[in-house]
Amino acid sequence: MKRIKLEIAYDGTAYCGWQIQPGQPTVEAEMNKALSELLREEIIVTGASRTDSGVHALGNVAIFDTESAIPAEKICPAVNQRLPEDIRVQTSKEVPANFHPRRQASRKTYEYRILNKKVALPTQRLYANYIYYDLDISLMQEAADYLIGEHDFKSFCSVKTQATDTVRTIYQLNVTKNGDIITISVTGSGFLYNMVRIIAGTLLEVGRGAYPPDKLEGILKGCDRSLAGPTALAHGLTLIKIDYVSEEK
Amino acid sequence: MKRIKLEIAYDGTAYCGWQIQPGQPTVEAEMNKALSELLREEIIVTGASRTDSGVHALGNVAIFDTESAIPAEKICPAVNQRLPEDIRVQTSKEVPANFHPRRQASRKTYEYRILNKKVALPTQRLYANYIYYDLDISLMQEAADYLIGEHDFKSFCSVKTQATDTVRTIYQLNVTKNGDIITISVTGSGFLYNMVRIIAGTLLEVGRGAYPPDKLEGILKGCDRSLAGPTALAHGLTLIKIDYVSEEK
Repeated sequence: MKRIKLEIAYDGTAYCGWQIQPGQPTVEAEMNKALSELLREEIIVTGASRTDSGVHALGNVAIFDTESAIPAEKICPAVNQRLPEDIRVQTSKEVPANFHPRRQASRKTYEYRILNKKVALPTQRLYANYIYYDLDISLMQEAADYLIGEHDFKSFCSVKTQATDTVRTIYQLNVTKNGDIITISVTGSGFLYNMVRIIAGTLLEVGRGAYPPDKLEGILKGCDRSLAGPTALAHGLTLIKIDYVSEEK
Repeated sequence: MKRIKLEIAYDGTAYCGWQIQPGQPTVEAEMNKALSELLREEIIVTGASRTDSGVHALGNVAIFDTESAIPAEKICPAVNQRLPEDIRVQTSKEVPANFHPRRQASRKTYEYRILNKKVALPTQRLYANYIYYDLDISLMQEAADYLIGEHDFKSFCSVKTQATDTVRTIYQLNVTKNGDIITISVTGSGFLYNMVRIIAGTLLEVGRGAYPPDKLEGILKGCDRSLAGPTALAHGLTLIKIDYVSEEK
């Protein structure tokens, strides 16, 4: 028996998120189906990030255990032949049997993309949140700086969460602009339910002038979801990568 | 009566190209339908570039004549309310009654995008041609340089063309790389049927080492379609913009 770690990219447009839901298309269900067919045994993957409906990934991580003799590195190209074209495994390799994608220390990086112009662009409609009003990215960055470090992010967590410990660390949070695309890039030790989308929704309020940047300090301290901005639309969000501190045998 | 010029962006994925074909979804048919509904008269647009099935646009151009009293600039936001979300008019303005988008002197810019990595990326699958083998962009640029200037591009034109004069001018032809994306950017006085896709297909042959760069000289001189490389896939191509030398009243 060996444990295999996969890095998986997908276009979330057609899926009701990562996690299996009966009768709904999910990335997890597609992975289990393709791997089970390939390896001729029942495979059940465990994912690192249960991305929401419509959220994209360049590098979500999942593991599974197999008795197969196929070399770990060959699983990536082989399973891609059986996956729909909106899911592609990027890498596959063997990891220690005790490696767990959600319990191991990691740094996750997400990007939230905003198309900021007067008229929408069809070719960006699935991958960026279209905002027609002007956004001031220097104000957005000023606000973002309050969130860097270790904080209780309860205000930035959906009330539907099951988490009891809402303290997380944000290592990096940058707001940059390239042409008409504004990108909010955030790296952290982990993220609460809807946390990146609530951060994005709050920074959008700052960017349009509705909140002063220093309001973020009070939102954090208040530990109350109703203080922060709205949850930004899912399709602007992409899980870029998950770096584990240690995993190799 | 006034003549209105539109700049139109679209995602070509769902369309059988620009030009009306009975029973098929086309961008031209959607434009005529939305404008006719908005202006309450029968509108028939005339497009600048009859892009192929699957080709995208940021700035195709079309004109139409109308008796409507709606100010020209207001047509853009109003018609967008009636268009599907994969088509968006970017600008609308009045032009002289003798302005014609195909007969007026112009410079057209296209981009052909290639995703060059070992495994495909789902979020790029509709907007870049995925090539897994290594491509040498310095060889591609060396080959591209032979095409700059005024030449008979008969070798780079589909045999299905109706054009008799196959001389065109390429002002600029650059091959650049950003991360995993290689972009072939070309600006010319006009392009023959499939010309940009045949240029891209030929540069791909150079990039993978199948053709030496100086083979382009012989391909041009031969004036024979069979000498050039294959026609690259449509979905990598985007019509970026069309600049007219003069149009304003």
